[in-house]
Amino acid sequence: MKAALLSIGNELLLGKTINTNFAFIGKSLAKIGIYLDKEITIPDTEKAISESLDLLWKNYDLVLTTGGLGPTKDDITKKTIADFFGKALFFDYKVWENVQFLFLKKKRKMPNLNRNQALVPQDFVAIENKMGTAPGLAYHKDNKFLFMMPGVPKEMEYLMTEHILNILKKAFKLPKIDITTIHTKGIAESAIAELIDDIVVEEPVRLAFLPQTGRVDLRVYGTNPVKNKKVVEEIKERLHHKIWGENVSSPGELIHQKFLEEGFTLSLAESCTGGMVQEILTSFPGASKYFLGGIVSYSNQAKINLLKVQENTLNKYGAVSEETAIEMAQGVKKIFKSDFSASVTGVAGPDGGTFEKPVGTVFISVANNDKTMTKKFVFSGNRKRIRQMSAENVFFMLMDLLKKSGNK
Amino acid sequence: MKAALLSIGNELLLGKTINTNFAFIGKSLAKIGIYLDKEITIPDTEKAISESLDLLWKNYDLVLTTGGLGPTKDDITKKTIADFFGKALFFDYKVWENVQFLFLKKKRKMPNLNRNQALVPQDFVAIENKMGTAPGLAYHKDNKFLFMMPGVPKEMEYLMTEHILNILKKAFKLPKIDITTIHTKGIAESAIAELIDDIVVEEPVRLAFLPQTGRVDLRVYGTNPVKNKKVVEEIKERLHHKIWGENVSSPGELIHQKFLEEGFTLSLAESCTGGMVQEILTSFPGASKYFLGGIVSYSNQAKINLLKVQENTLNKYGAVSEETAIEMAQGVKKIFKSDFSASVTGVAGPDGGTFEKPVGTVFISVANNDKTMTKKFVFSGNRKRIRQMSAENVFFMLMDLLKKSGNK
Repeated sequence: MKAALLSIGNELLLGKTINTNFAFIGKSLAKIGIYLDKEITIPDTEKAISESLDLLWKNYDLVLTTGGLGPTKDDITKKTIADFFGKALFFDYKVWENVQFLFLKKKRKMPNLNRNQALVPQDFVAIENKMGTAPGLAYHKDNKFLFMMPGVPKEMEYLMTEHILNILKKAFKLPKIDITTIHTKGIAESAIAELIDDIVVEEPVRLAFLPQTGRVDLRVYGTNPVKNKKVVEEIKERLHHKIWGENVSSPGELIHQKFLEEGFTLSLAESCTGGMVQEILTSFPGASKYFLGGIVSYSNQAKINLLKVQENTLNKYGAVSEETAIEMAQGVKKIFKSDFSASVTGVAGPDGGTFEKPVGTVFISVANNDKTMTKKFVFSGNRKRIRQMSAENVFFMLMDLLKKSGNK
Repeated sequence: MKAALLSIGNELLLGKTINTNFAFIGKSLAKIGIYLDKEITIPDTEKAISESLDLLWKNYDLVLTTGGLGPTKDDITKKTIADFFGKALFFDYKVWENVQFLFLKKKRKMPNLNRNQALVPQDFVAIENKMGTAPGLAYHKDNKFLFMMPGVPKEMEYLMTEHILNILKKAFKLPKIDITTIHTKGIAESAIAELIDDIVVEEPVRLAFLPQTGRVDLRVYGTNPVKNKKVVEEIKERLHHKIWGENVSSPGELIHQKFLEEGFTLSLAESCTGGMVQEILTSFPGASKYFLGGIVSYSNQAKINLLKVQENTLNKYGAVSEETAIEMAQGVKKIFKSDFSASVTGVAGPDGGTFEKPVGTVFISVANNDKTMTKKFVFSGNRKRIRQMSAENVFFMLMDLLKKSGNK
């Protein structure tokens, strides 16, 4: 079973939009045992669409498309694909009702152009889209499937999750795929490869290196859980001191889970990350059960007045220092009366670096009632990467401190 | 001049990594007048790499690749592409020195595997990569260019910005591209299309609809600035009441620019967005010039103790209410002594919705010394989208309030 995705849209090629749909679709399919073999992004032109579809429809069992189903002149995917299969377009009254209903609900006047959205190619099935006016479209022939979705993420996600994955699960006898992802940090990909070089990995067990920003994930997957487990155990034995988790999506998610499980509360004081650590934690539903709140102390005044960092500390050691990080963590913990707290202060750049504290210098402090731990980091890369690495290491340090504490 | 990108990596197809490199490369090339015509993502297999390269090298003048240049068994891009062109691999001592230097600098022992990274295909040129151990590789034949880059974003960004764009600018006589992006909100793509339907857009002027989450951008571009301008002016006349900006990357960036220009200071109180608004503003260098800090009041206690929201207000109207939003905005403004402030409180879901305040209900309040403005929104979609829409509308409301204020 070979699967491909065709992403249609100038905005992707112009770099105006990041193709997050692609990752969502790849991940959703992998969960039900279908692996994307190829993704192609093309502009909204008839030529590009029909050429790529020709290639994909010949060589793949499942083809998904995103984009170009809107009502404007730009949106030529439906017409082009109907032409490709030699199908006429028919007006579908059920789709039309849904389009009208959505405009009514938003109390907006419907432009005439939106009538086009109710056109469905002959022999195609419209899939109801509760999130927008463009229906999904499905076509099935010679044991091959084509699914067309709009490019708007919430609409694509709805169609995938509520309809297309279910259709695929029913249509194909999919092997159950067993997946274990082992998360490492502080070790280069090449060093991992050397350490596990002699572990035998043969079909049906597959191993993939998945480098992340500043760390590496290893994925062991395949149809045989017993054989997978053997490989996983061997890898874990070799790399145990470098492993921080298993089967979580990110260090932030692991901290979210741990705090939910262990019943401790948390507060945060952020400087150079400007709220990123809190943003990550609150992106997970249920964060309010442990996360009490935090302070973004972007100015020295905020550090002094709110977090009660000593003016003397700031003058003597600077805002980016071990001493300030400690006082920030202890200050925010006191304010929120939380069991745990963390702070981060650093030079994210591009300006503000000095000889002693170059851009990338970051101090992170974590505290609970028994202990305060503080570390200095010097991250490389641009502002974005330095902030990301800082946020991740807040999570890693919280993991360490949690390990040193019992359950609540 | 036709350009294509080949993204190589299982992690992309598994949805484990979002292909941000693609957007970066598309955007960087567009800035110097080169438009990506196609992007293909394939797994790390010899077959996939040589088949796709065959297709692209025949049909495009410029081919870029990312991924698969690391030192592990997975990383087969270099060897496969060398084979494709019938080139042997040679050991390059200059590259080797750089690899050794980078390990020395990090004080890490170098695994033997990394010697592979110093191998360069015959007739290829190694491009120095200061950010990592895999050099970029360039090949030039029959007026066609191939550039190979590692998949690690900071390494790819370095190679593009510091080397490849300059090489391309020198190698090709590129037409200067004039681009104007008009940002709209509160109007559907189809409604825009109807309003501007009769505006004549002919070569060399091009118009693209770039739908964003909850709003639409229009890009007018081409080689003739005078003709572009005429179209831009016409569009602006038709849509003026729906336009919030021109040539900025996001509402957050516009607020960042405005506060830098106008010299006002800003503080923030966030509940459902959990720090996202502050994270966005501080992602721009120089935010410390106007952003004093903020409070993430994720618990009622934080709203009462820190922001001085009246307990009575919370009991009577609830945490998600106009009244609470107002007190949050006014409270944070007082604490930070800022000229402006904003607050956001809402139900991001998936739980916590009620009949009266369903998931997606969000109150945003913005304040300065003269005025406090508050609005209720009901956003659709999932938690992620509701939070994004909330953050964006904080920026839109700050724009409105700034318009109503003079310069400092």
